[in-house]
Amino acid sequence: MPKTSDHAPLLADSVRLAEDGVHILDRRVFPFERRWVHARDLGEVAAAIQDMVTQSSGPYFAALWGMVLAAREPHGDLARARQRLGEAGQELIATRPTNDHQRKAVQWVINAVDEAVADNPGLAPAEFVAAATAGAEAGAQDYRSRSRALGAVAAALLPDEGHVLTHCWGDLYLVETVTAAQRLGKRIGFFCTETRPYLQGARLTAETLGEMGVDTTLITDGMGASLFSQGLVDALVTASDRITMDGHVINKVGTLQLAVAAHAFGVPFHALAQSPDQHASTASDVPIEYRDGTEVLTTLGHRTASTRVRGHYPAFDVTPPRFVTTVVTDKGAFAPGRLQDYYTQETAP
Amino acid sequence: MPKTSDHAPLLADSVRLAEDGVHILDRRVFPFERRWVHARDLGEVAAAIQDMVTQSSGPYFAALWGMVLAAREPHGDLARARQRLGEAGQELIATRPTNDHQRKAVQWVINAVDEAVADNPGLAPAEFVAAATAGAEAGAQDYRSRSRALGAVAAALLPDEGHVLTHCWGDLYLVETVTAAQRLGKRIGFFCTETRPYLQGARLTAETLGEMGVDTTLITDGMGASLFSQGLVDALVTASDRITMDGHVINKVGTLQLAVAAHAFGVPFHALAQSPDQHASTASDVPIEYRDGTEVLTTLGHRTASTRVRGHYPAFDVTPPRFVTTVVTDKGAFAPGRLQDYYTQETAP
Repeated sequence: MPKTSDHAPLLADSVRLAEDGVHILDRRVFPFERRWVHARDLGEVAAAIQDMVTQSSGPYFAALWGMVLAAREPHGDLARARQRLGEAGQELIATRPTNDHQRKAVQWVINAVDEAVADNPGLAPAEFVAAATAGAEAGAQDYRSRSRALGAVAAALLPDEGHVLTHCWGDLYLVETVTAAQRLGKRIGFFCTETRPYLQGARLTAETLGEMGVDTTLITDGMGASLFSQGLVDALVTASDRITMDGHVINKVGTLQLAVAAHAFGVPFHALAQSPDQHASTASDVPIEYRDGTEVLTTLGHRTASTRVRGHYPAFDVTPPRFVTTVVTDKGAFAPGRLQDYYTQETAP
Repeated sequence: MPKTSDHAPLLADSVRLAEDGVHILDRRVFPFERRWVHARDLGEVAAAIQDMVTQSSGPYFAALWGMVLAAREPHGDLARARQRLGEAGQELIATRPTNDHQRKAVQWVINAVDEAVADNPGLAPAEFVAAATAGAEAGAQDYRSRSRALGAVAAALLPDEGHVLTHCWGDLYLVETVTAAQRLGKRIGFFCTETRPYLQGARLTAETLGEMGVDTTLITDGMGASLFSQGLVDALVTASDRITMDGHVINKVGTLQLAVAAHAFGVPFHALAQSPDQHASTASDVPIEYRDGTEVLTTLGHRTASTRVRGHYPAFDVTPPRFVTTVVTDKGAFAPGRLQDYYTQETAP
């Protein structure tokens, strides 16, 4: 990392609330095009999440701002407005099942509104919107500051000089890890997998690490073990969509294969998540999203497979705790078998 | 496998000798285009191998027929013709370093010519060409019959009903394995990896298995472990570019990662090779080809990565024997630690 970046990369602020709706950077075409999708109402926000306009932490911010759009809708009375907000939250949570970001985002807004109503049962429409907006903004702020804390913990685990392999796109967790490592003066080069079929690694991770001045090398999804076996990688670091209380890491499909290979060749695997999920005691509590198999048959819209086959696309996989070295959270680093400590200890280790 | 195919798939006969040169099916665009590259002389055959017009067992046949083209060149006298054949062989062997197919092909032709010269030191030019051609044809016949024997051994290892995962394109080894399994009435479905960056799996394997009537499902290169962990695969079966005498399997990059994952989840890995390589006692005896890293940045000619990164492309990887269940040869199946037996035993096990 030759230099500390002067400003945050574009993907670190790529879902924005405005007067006329939510503007979402289209990650399906980035960085080849910098196209923003304009979602005018809650339904369009939900569709954008479902259609992968944004992913990783993008749906969290999209859900926060989508709830604000729902709060802005004209409603007859306060009770109906509150009911509508609950329905909007359900619609957002249903968009994609594996990550629980949307649920958390929805909760921020619902809680803020419910507190405001408790304080003032005669809340005016404008005050209702203001409460929802304040809740969404607090949710955004919380996510950013917890990602920053997590990044500092992750960076401390990395060597002063060396190479990290990452998979898919770790979004703010990765940006904050790199920022913290740069602040510490660590010289870390990155390998990133291209992450078929959507190529999040080749496009989002590669572009953003490049923007941040990180020396970055792209590999295909099959090359990680080759690098591990040759001693070219000091740590495997990925974000995770969920981590269960017993240490299973659910993340973009391909993570399991890399984690198993890293383990076989003595490379540590650090999985990043703000916190383990108290709603998921083990892997069977987390639904794995299967996306349309035809997505595997094309690459950025071009047919790249024989017409004689079908495709298969489990969007996520489950890495058992025996292949996980460290779970990195905003409160510190934990062994995968000690995740209860996250909720019981007083301070970070 | 609902039906036995009525005729061989196109890729099983895709490098052909003719009066006007060698015609090579262009595997870089198959099956989207059925374009044949016409190599008029030895230099064009060597260039076609280097440029990946053909791969897997293709370079073996291309080298056989390329040697015939070299033998057909007008030479002053027999000594010069024989010398030219030696130089031609070196040129073919130098095209790609990891697989030793070209060396074996060259040897077939050289041996046939040397035997003919020993019988008749005054060999006429036409007789010289005839000897070279007969040697090349014998080499082709030998390769096909040994692949058939190997296929029968591999098929016997598969369950009567189940699923195989294969990586890259196993060419005649795979075709003969499938043919033998079909003959035995085994009902085997296949998963194949797409095999970036060239997509041999998505294009060559998927198309050919489809041609042969095999139920085939395509996955990305990162999904194998996910399938293994869910019990969806009964065996990992790949060809290999070389197998060392101590049981290291050198094959298309990505094989190692799949083999490690298969091992972690109790799925057997059967590596196909006509014979272990007596010229390679261990992995350090086999040079690993590094191709141009920019090949990772594109997909079938389209840029698919950020412009801010470089690519890295080790074309092959090395799977240590602890991750290999069986080495399948034309003389039977061997444990990776017992490959000397291939050369010492009388009959197949």
